Amino acid sequence: MSGAPVDFYFEFSSPYGYIATQLADEFEKKIGRPLTWRPFLLGPIFKMTGGAPLTAIPMKGEYSKRDFVRSARWHKVPFRMPDTFPINSVAACRAFYWLNDRDPQKAKGLAKTLYTAFFAENRDIGSPAIVVDVARSLGVDGDAISAALDDPALKERTKKEVDAAISRGIFGSPFFVIDGEPFWGVDRMPMAEEWVRTGGW
Amino acid sequence: MSGAPVDFYFEFSSPYGYIATQLADEFEKKIGRPLTWRPFLLGPIFKMTGGAPLTAIPMKGEYSKRDFVRSARWHKVPFRMPDTFPINSVAACRAFYWLNDRDPQKAKGLAKTLYTAFFAENRDIGSPAIVVDVARSLGVDGDAISAALDDPALKERTKKEVDAAISRGIFGSPFFVIDGEPFWGVDRMPMAEEWVRTGGW
Repeated sequence: MSGAPVDFYFEFSSPYGYIATQLADEFEKKIGRPLTWRPFLLGPIFKMTGGAPLTAIPMKGEYSKRDFVRSARWHKVPFRMPDTFPINSVAACRAFYWLNDRDPQKAKGLAKTLYTAFFAENRDIGSPAIVVDVARSLGVDGDAISAALDDPALKERTKKEVDAAISRGIFGSPFFVIDGEPFWGVDRMPMAEEWVRTGGW
Repeated sequence: MSGAPVDFYFEFSSPYGYIATQLADEFEKKIGRPLTWRPFLLGPIFKMTGGAPLTAIPMKGEYSKRDFVRSARWHKVPFRMPDTFPINSVAACRAFYWLNDRDPQKAKGLAKTLYTAFFAENRDIGSPAIVVDVARSLGVDGDAISAALDDPALKERTKKEVDAAISRGIFGSPFFVIDGEPFWGVDRMPMAEEWVRTGGW
């Protein structure tokens, strides 16, 4: 894979972010550029943009729930609407960065497995105990990650990532930045592919 | 063209609505179903959903302006950001329905030409005088349409359409409803095509 890395932002509570992680390996091949996975938190951004979780918005909420299911099927990704939604994904986000600093490849695996636990198996990954449990199932040291989740250093590490995302103008999930060009949404992935293929327009 | 008509909603101040009208004839052929054009007004809906014109939303605003241009080029539709944006599109909407009740085919032509005037030629179609002028350029009786724009009956006719759109859960532009299935956005048009082709999933 040649070419500068592409930043790939997603929020663990986002169904479209989930779909994007399931398509990410194929997308990487299509664009011939490595993706840098960067989970972040939409909560602080909604405060700035006046945004809200899709399902909480009048009219848009009902549509979105339908579109989550439809989009997942269209992309052949297993999906069921979790009973608890949305969630506070800060523990999932922190666990990702803790593992990412040790083993980036394994961190990607953790992100995918956390998402699947939430959106296919209806497990509430808003709970730190479940995040640790999922990590443990991948052979990660559960006690170490559990202790890390309460470590101010990891909290600060994660906050820095979220602040950096905000500074870059990231306001939705999934979000890709390719050579400075921003693409928001699973539905912009085909356009991003064409952008890379043609050098932009 | 066989099969039940597909409702096609759009707001004259919406760049993505504009792009959709430019793609509509081809889309009609692809899905093999006639489109019923239904302009509506997003203003009253934003009041219900807490929405706002995209360009007025922090972070999303800058992104959107970029995406309008990029999406228009991707679909080979001429576009420049109008100097006055957004606009109150009520005169354009009323003019459409007035003409639609007399000559639906010509009303489609008026919609396309109004949109092109706004998004390609930078003419402020928020102004009733410009709406009348555009209609006149298509051979429509300018004095009749000008008088109609102030007619309470046309105001009521238009309000009914907007209220009906709201009742159906239409909250964005463009918006298609195919056999009860809602599709929001230019980016959902390929999914809608597949939906019709396969009978849904």
